[in-house]
Amino acid sequence: MAKTVKDLSQVELEALKIELEAMYSEFASRNLSLNMARGKPSGELLDHNMAVLDVLDDPFAADGTDARNYGILEGLPEMRRFFGEVLGLDPERIIVGGNSSLTLMYDSIARLMMFGSCGFPAWRTLPQLKFLCPSPGYDRHFAITQEFGIDMIPVPMTENGPDMDVVEELVAGDESIKGIWCVPLYSNPQGICYSDETVARLGRMKTAAPDFKIFWDNAYGVHHIYGEVQLADIFSACDSGGNPDRAYYFFSTSKITFPGAGVAMMAASFAERKEILKRMGIQTIGSDKLNQLRTLRVLKDAPTLKKHMAELADVLRPKFDIVLQLLDRELKDGGFATWNTPRGGYFVSLDTLDGCAKKTLELAGKAGVTMTGAGATFPYKKDPRDRNIRIAPTYPADAELRTAMELFCVCVKLAAVKKLLGEF
Amino acid sequence: MAKTVKDLSQVELEALKIELEAMYSEFASRNLSLNMARGKPSGELLDHNMAVLDVLDDPFAADGTDARNYGILEGLPEMRRFFGEVLGLDPERIIVGGNSSLTLMYDSIARLMMFGSCGFPAWRTLPQLKFLCPSPGYDRHFAITQEFGIDMIPVPMTENGPDMDVVEELVAGDESIKGIWCVPLYSNPQGICYSDETVARLGRMKTAAPDFKIFWDNAYGVHHIYGEVQLADIFSACDSGGNPDRAYYFFSTSKITFPGAGVAMMAASFAERKEILKRMGIQTIGSDKLNQLRTLRVLKDAPTLKKHMAELADVLRPKFDIVLQLLDRELKDGGFATWNTPRGGYFVSLDTLDGCAKKTLELAGKAGVTMTGAGATFPYKKDPRDRNIRIAPTYPADAELRTAMELFCVCVKLAAVKKLLGEF
Repeated sequence: MAKTVKDLSQVELEALKIELEAMYSEFASRNLSLNMARGKPSGELLDHNMAVLDVLDDPFAADGTDARNYGILEGLPEMRRFFGEVLGLDPERIIVGGNSSLTLMYDSIARLMMFGSCGFPAWRTLPQLKFLCPSPGYDRHFAITQEFGIDMIPVPMTENGPDMDVVEELVAGDESIKGIWCVPLYSNPQGICYSDETVARLGRMKTAAPDFKIFWDNAYGVHHIYGEVQLADIFSACDSGGNPDRAYYFFSTSKITFPGAGVAMMAASFAERKEILKRMGIQTIGSDKLNQLRTLRVLKDAPTLKKHMAELADVLRPKFDIVLQLLDRELKDGGFATWNTPRGGYFVSLDTLDGCAKKTLELAGKAGVTMTGAGATFPYKKDPRDRNIRIAPTYPADAELRTAMELFCVCVKLAAVKKLLGEF
Repeated sequence: MAKTVKDLSQVELEALKIELEAMYSEFASRNLSLNMARGKPSGELLDHNMAVLDVLDDPFAADGTDARNYGILEGLPEMRRFFGEVLGLDPERIIVGGNSSLTLMYDSIARLMMFGSCGFPAWRTLPQLKFLCPSPGYDRHFAITQEFGIDMIPVPMTENGPDMDVVEELVAGDESIKGIWCVPLYSNPQGICYSDETVARLGRMKTAAPDFKIFWDNAYGVHHIYGEVQLADIFSACDSGGNPDRAYYFFSTSKITFPGAGVAMMAASFAERKEILKRMGIQTIGSDKLNQLRTLRVLKDAPTLKKHMAELADVLRPKFDIVLQLLDRELKDGGFATWNTPRGGYFVSLDTLDGCAKKTLELAGKAGVTMTGAGATFPYKKDPRDRNIRIAPTYPADAELRTAMELFCVCVKLAAVKKLLGEF
């Protein structure tokens, strides 16, 4: 077994530091300006979707509905059928939204806060509110719960999803715990896929809160890169667990067609959906149906979508290969970091030595590479061990990505050495 | 002066009733199915806007922003400049939304409820909340305030806008009155245009609530039909009145391009806008910028928009002519109803004899013509005098509209006669 950085003597660390600082200076002198902060697709990926921008010469839906005009709050029937086919959902559970599933999530929390659902009291009237936040997780989820003053409880992740022993114990004993954020397939940032057992336990677990909600953000539901992982059906799990109204399901074409102009959807139990539609009908006369048609005429059906996603994966795979190969080559033997090897999704999650994430990103930033802020993957942006870093390889061009990752690896090592030398 | 229906003897009324019932039966026998319920544009109007559906071959904004990707929460600069130019607003006040200004209004109320604004407490924490509702008004406005449990106080309309003597007295004496709904140009349903004096008084009036808000829904801001009416600038009025944060301004291209796929916007003071954007940034990563480009490449600038609206007005004017000429011919001399003669917008508002609106619409409905429900134009759908009817002439084709209005006039008269005969 090779010697890791932790086994090095003071003298060896000092020598390594000089070597790394020289490499770092070389990168810094290049005046790089690379941004890997967000999970944005590259222009090359977007160019694959230009057919969505083609002329829409027939603005009528299959049933003759004029998609230009007002109405059809729940979305065009063919759009709901499409989402149903792709995700294995009953279209009667589905509501098509605008361009943002994040908005559907925010609005769902807002409705629960203001009004409650299914006869349960409005959350704002309760003395305390808490949400389980499997961590590391998605910063924009955490921002929503924080915005509404909902206390966030981090839950550790396992290779099968959130640690269900912890989850079950927490929800059983505390009625102020009202929900959980989940990215069940290729989780953000770790790329973890929830096992069938995890899904089943989420559906059947006893919760002290009678109106406990699973926010099931299946953002990467069809975003396979290295083969295909199957996800169990959360609605079946909730139904057979005796908790039919427990799950809100979210999905969008943001990372299938265009992030700024995709089509979002949510799904829920029939009772919940009826109530949500009633309240949504006060908020809007309906989402953009022309964009539904535009998107649908390109994505067509599940087989066409599958082909489309395989094409996108062909663009994404080399980017993930670059990241994973460089991490492997630069950081593995020295024990500088650990990371996941996702089979899909948009991210690679890396853990530095404890206490080194902020310093690593500070170094990278000063040399011109912006990455997702340290701590962003934890509630309140507080990573208790200051070690998790989200790598978002999808936006830069391959050559830029390679440079950025080379620098990043130097920064990870340099921060580790400085830490072990007691410099910070 | 001609004899009105109220001057008729019992015998004359009975004779008229027999005549009207024969006419009514004739219409009923035609099995009509005409819908004039909502302010929807006709297919003919929408066909004028098909250029918006053309291929979007260049998805980049003027500053190089890739409109396909995430970001630009406040909307593309050129879209804000366009709205600013058209409405005489500083683009730095403007936030571009999705396809629905109604959603921007709902979300604004929701934010005030949950969070408050500019340092004032969240409205949900206050013991009572009230809104002034100039009536008749827009049912979807009233539905929002009702949804959030805000008590609605009807305020009478004058030919210059809401009765400002009433408004000033109410807002000065009751700190629970938090806002007012306004459609300042071609008001829904009466087509009333707020005078400069009304705008100035709204801006400077003393309100007991320090965070009083004017919801300025300028839905028909460029929808002139018979000449052009100018609207005073509400922000100038608020600024010079010493109440810079008082107005939220709303507008959209829903009735310029496509109702289901237009571009909405809101504007506010600089302080309010900053706070709104911060909260919006939790709710969404940004609105659909491709639709902003699509819309902008057709509407271009204020002169092009003016020409576009003149073309739409040429389609709308014959519809309004049909309505106004038939009302004049059928209902004027007999004193069966009074109505406004709008110079723009989307509606004609008619008052039957007291207590006759529901019956009139019931008769019309039974003969196959659906119109906006009686009472819809008042808070809680309660028209205290059961007399106001909103006529929406924009959707039906001209021939259908003529038939529907002929029937409608018979129904107005028949209901009046039955009322005077004591039949209901």
